[in-house]
This record gives sequence, C-alpha cells and structure tokens, in this order.
Amino acid sequence: MPPVNRVCRLAARPIGLPKSSDWEVTDEPVASPGAGEFLVRVEYLSIDPAMRTWMNAGRSYVPAVEIGEVMRAGGIGRVIDSRHPDFAAGDHVYGVFGVQRYALSDGSGVTAVDTTVAPAPAHLGVLGVSGLTAYFGLLDVGRPQPGQTVVVSGAAGSVGSIVGQIARIHGCRVIGIAGGEEKCRWLLAELGFDAAIDYQATDLRKQLKTHAPNGIDVFFDNVGGTALEAALSRLARGARVVLCGAISQYNTSGELRGPANYMQLLVARASMAGFVVFDYADQYSEAVVQLANWLRSGELRSREQVVNGDVADFPEVLLSLFRGHNTGKLILEIDAETQ
Amino acid sequence: MPPVNRVCRLAARPIGLPKSSDWEVTDEPVASPGAGEFLVRVEYLSIDPAMRTWMNAGRSYVPAVEIGEVMRAGGIGRVIDSRHPDFAAGDHVYGVFGVQRYALSDGSGVTAVDTTVAPAPAHLGVLGVSGLTAYFGLLDVGRPQPGQTVVVSGAAGSVGSIVGQIARIHGCRVIGIAGGEEKCRWLLAELGFDAAIDYQATDLRKQLKTHAPNGIDVFFDNVGGTALEAALSRLARGARVVLCGAISQYNTSGELRGPANYMQLLVARASMAGFVVFDYADQYSEAVVQLANWLRSGELRSREQVVNGDVADFPEVLLSLFRGHNTGKLILEIDAETQ
Repeated sequence: MPPVNRVCRLAARPIGLPKSSDWEVTDEPVASPGAGEFLVRVEYLSIDPAMRTWMNAGRSYVPAVEIGEVMRAGGIGRVIDSRHPDFAAGDHVYGVFGVQRYALSDGSGVTAVDTTVAPAPAHLGVLGVSGLTAYFGLLDVGRPQPGQTVVVSGAAGSVGSIVGQIARIHGCRVIGIAGGEEKCRWLLAELGFDAAIDYQATDLRKQLKTHAPNGIDVFFDNVGGTALEAALSRLARGARVVLCGAISQYNTSGELRGPANYMQLLVARASMAGFVVFDYADQYSEAVVQLANWLRSGELRSREQVVNGDVADFPEVLLSLFRGHNTGKLILEIDAETQ
Repeated sequence: MPPVNRVCRLAARPIGLPKSSDWEVTDEPVASPGAGEFLVRVEYLSIDPAMRTWMNAGRSYVPAVEIGEVMRAGGIGRVIDSRHPDFAAGDHVYGVFGVQRYALSDGSGVTAVDTTVAPAPAHLGVLGVSGLTAYFGLLDVGRPQPGQTVVVSGAAGSVGSIVGQIARIHGCRVIGIAGGEEKCRWLLAELGFDAAIDYQATDLRKQLKTHAPNGIDVFFDNVGGTALEAALSRLARGARVVLCGAISQYNTSGELRGPANYMQLLVARASMAGFVVFDYADQYSEAVVQLANWLRSGELRSREQVVNGDVADFPEVLLSLFRGHNTGKLILEIDAETQ
C-alpha cells in the first residue's frame, strides 16, 4: 500500500470551543517533491493556545487559517525524500508543517534540529518557539532586574514555566499563577518558584497582595481576563506588563473582556506591551545556545507532555489544552503505524 | 460684615454622575494666617475631568478626597494677608486651594503666577497643569516623530487641544476626535489639525481608517471606551498609546469597560503606558518657557472658557464638563461680590 497523507483541515470558523464539525480529516495521496523541494514525515506537532486565534478571521500577527486549509502547526519531522540541496533524507527538521502526516516543503522557515543537544520534543518546547517566546518576552520586553518581583500567569504552561525559571536565574522573586494544586507543587518543588498561586482554589488578588507585598515589577501574561486584572491592581511603580497570550479569552463566544482597571497603568506609571517572537528571528541562535546551556547545567528544567496519536486526534488534544490538563509543553506525536 | 468663606465639601461618594446631595456648600469664617502661612482669595478654579476620579475611594495616583473634606481643585488667586517670607499681599499665585473662596496655605505646592506673560486663566490652561500634561505626555511618553500620525481623543478639551497642536508643531499628521461639528470646525480652522472626527455623527473606526490609512503611531487617550478600542484596532507597528484620562468611564455606575481588543497591542508590537504629570515637576519651568514661546509666536493657541459664578455653582459647572459642553479649558471664576 502506498503511504497515505492524513490531513486535518479547518472546515468552519469555530464559535467558542472548536467542535468536531469545525474540522475535516481526510486521507490524501502523498505528494512527491519537485525540484528544490523535500518531503517530511511529521513526527511531533506543537500544540499551542495561539492556534485558536489563528482560526479566527480578522487582523492578527499572522494571517488567519482559511477554511479548507491544512491547520497550521509547528512540527518536527524527518526528511524522507529530497530534491533540495540543503536537506537530505534522514535530517531532523523543524518547520510549520501543519497538522498532517507528510508535508512538502521548499525549505522556507525550516531549520535543522540537533537531537544530540536534546531529544526532538525539547526542540518544540524549551529550545523551540515556547522557550524563545519566554526568553525574549521576559528579557527584552519585561526587562526584569535582580531583586524585582516577577509574576507569570499560565505558569505551568510551556511558555510560563520557562519565563519563571529565567526570572529566577536572573535573581528575581518569582510568583506563578496556575490552575490546580499539582501544577503549583511542580512550580515550587521542581522549578524553584518562590510562590505559586492556585487561582482555582484561592482569592487571586489576596494572594498577590500576600506574595508581592511591594507590588509586581513585571507581569508576564499568558491568560488575560481576571488574572490580568488582578495583576494590574498590584503593579509596582514603573511596572512592565508583557502581553504574550490571553488563553482565557480565546474560546469566548460572547464579547471579549478587556481589563476593566487598565487605568491602573496610569496610577503605577506602568506600561503594557505586546510582542511577537518572530521579530527576534535574527537573535534565535544565541538565545538557543543560552537556553541549552541552562538546560545542560540543570538550572532550567523542561517538561514535555507527549501524547501519542494520529492526525485525527489533533482536535481532541487541542481541546485538552484549553481544559488546562497539561503541564509543560503539550505535544502530539504522530504515530507512523496508524492508517 | 466680615468676609465669609464659602466652601464646597464632598458629602457622599457619588454613584455615576455626582448629584447635589453629594456636595455640601457651607459658609464658614475666614481663617487668619498663622506664622509661616498666608491667606489667598481664590479667583479662578480649574475644572477637570480627573476631579471625578478623586471622589472615588481606592488606589489612585492621588489620595481620594475624603467625605467632609473641601473638594480638591487647582486654582489661581491673590494673596491678601501673609505671614510667610516668600509671599506678599497682592501676589498672584497658583496652588491646590480647593473649591472655596479663601484658602489658607503654608506655601506647599504654591507657585507665583506671572500675569504679564499671559492672563491668569491661561496659567490654569496652556501654561498650567493642562499644558504640562499635554507636553510631557505627548513628547516623553508618546515620542512622536515628524511625519508620524498622532490621534488624540477629547481633542477639543484642555489637554487634547494642546496635544494636537504640539504634535502639529513637531511635524506630525494630527487627527482629533471630538464630539460635535463645532468643536471639529475649531480644531481644523483654528488649531491646524489635519483631520477632525465627530464621533457623535460618524463611524469612528471607518473615519480612522480613512484619515490614518497607514495606521496610528501615537494615540493620546483622554476618553477610553469605544474611542480607545477604535484606535487600538488601527495601530501602526510599534505604536505608543498614551493613557492620560478615561472620561467616558468616570461616571459609569456599572462595571468599567476595559478595551476588549487590548491584544491588538501584541498584533502591532505596540505599548500602552500611563503617566502622571507631577513626576515631571523638576522640568516644569523649561516646559512652561517653551509653551509660552509657542503661545507668543502664535503657533500654539489657547482657549479658556471662563464661567462666572460662585463656589455654590461648582457642582453644576463640573457636570457641564461631563456633558461635553466646553471647548478648551473650563474655568470657574469665583466672583468676589456674591455672598
């Protein structure tokens, strides 16, 4: 039997949480690389909150995924056939290959993955876009100083868990906001956070007052909604709010919730800034060296939650992300055997 | 008859628009200055949107006015009796004298007013806190570059009208948002704005698209609400949003409205920052020299709307501000004759 490319396409723009009818999973013939192209067997897919925003129409930092298009996803795979001078069969590569088993590429945006530094999944997490997002967002936008208080929401997630650790390495006092006792225990016991607040079990504002008595110098936000409002109400003079994500708002079918107390930015003489990691592409390599060094020395710990499955499992794995079930980086491993 | 000090005190914390029962106007004896003090006959009171925020309990950039306290207000008056070495009877002075006919002062925060440079009311407007707020907010926080597009909301107000003119002087393309055809005509014909949008009569988002086809580089916000959201949806890459005020939200009795599309800051790699003019106190004098030079050369025009009245008229004059009836700086002149 010739290999089959199982592909997950966007079938409709979701309202609220994506439902199965918003997707179309089809089996298609595997394309053959033309001149200057190569074929990748996709092995690991990065599952990210931002994916939900790519499914909406309208102005964003990347074009929306169109109806009928292969769902966009970063992934790692192996080149299995190449007519491209820079890529050879057997190479491990990273690229935005999409939610499919086989991807044809002309090499744009594709980088080599060195699995001797760390196993492939780490290259989607701490050494990939998640780690780079944490690194540039915290250091370049947040600009934390030693001794300052850094608060991160979505602290047990792929970006948040790295933000907190980099802040700790920089000599900051680090407070994580996460959902559930187990995640909080992980932040404290494994990642060296100074405090972890379970927003599901406690009064977030009160806990921030307790753990950040002198206010928050840097708030790195992955969540939005009430987490953002709670942090705004506790900003220190001159604080920086780093906007990375707003997962609490991505599946809202009603009106989005802006921070009602945004004028606290005035009270605190603070600023709130957004960033997009792609703008730092020319500094990726030095950041990856730094992240890899911390990883090797044990100062930085990474956790990937790898779910074994098939392209057809993607919709359900994405939903599990929004249910907050994962700790660390969520990855879908595309099993070669399933047909 | 000995002089009477008519005083307006806060009687209750307003819900929504302040009503007459939120105030208590009383006639009290005029105090005599002790050693190191002087007595001021308050002649002009600055009427500002921020006053409404001072009436609320809770964390802000200045302490709340307490129930029973004289309502806080900046004012200009004349020293009529002094036991202070630096102030003599006859001096024109600016200070936070409060809504009352006579104020006792020890000189803290009081500065001399040179009425040979401009008449007293201008020292509450373009040469006072309003002008300084526009100057530092635009130049230091907004950092406009020649050729960039600057949009200001509340453009016909005391701060907004000066922001737009300073931006024009700096070689920017200036778009004002104001309520009503007459205000817009004033911005275009008298102040040299490049465009003026009457938000009451037109679709603000569409108009911003028309007048800022390459996006907004600096948005100076005095209004909040839908004006802020409309501007956020049109930000140019790297834009700065300057938070100065949020008059649309000050009299809301329900929940405050945060900008639902604040994540446009990420899309545009933009920042939103608050500031408080008092932080620039050590640079006031050089700014006033600059503003006075522009005023003299005719590059900068100021308009003060002076309402003649009495301390007892303050509540009504404040309400007229929130009804958007004023153009330029609103000032209450306290008539000496009324008893």
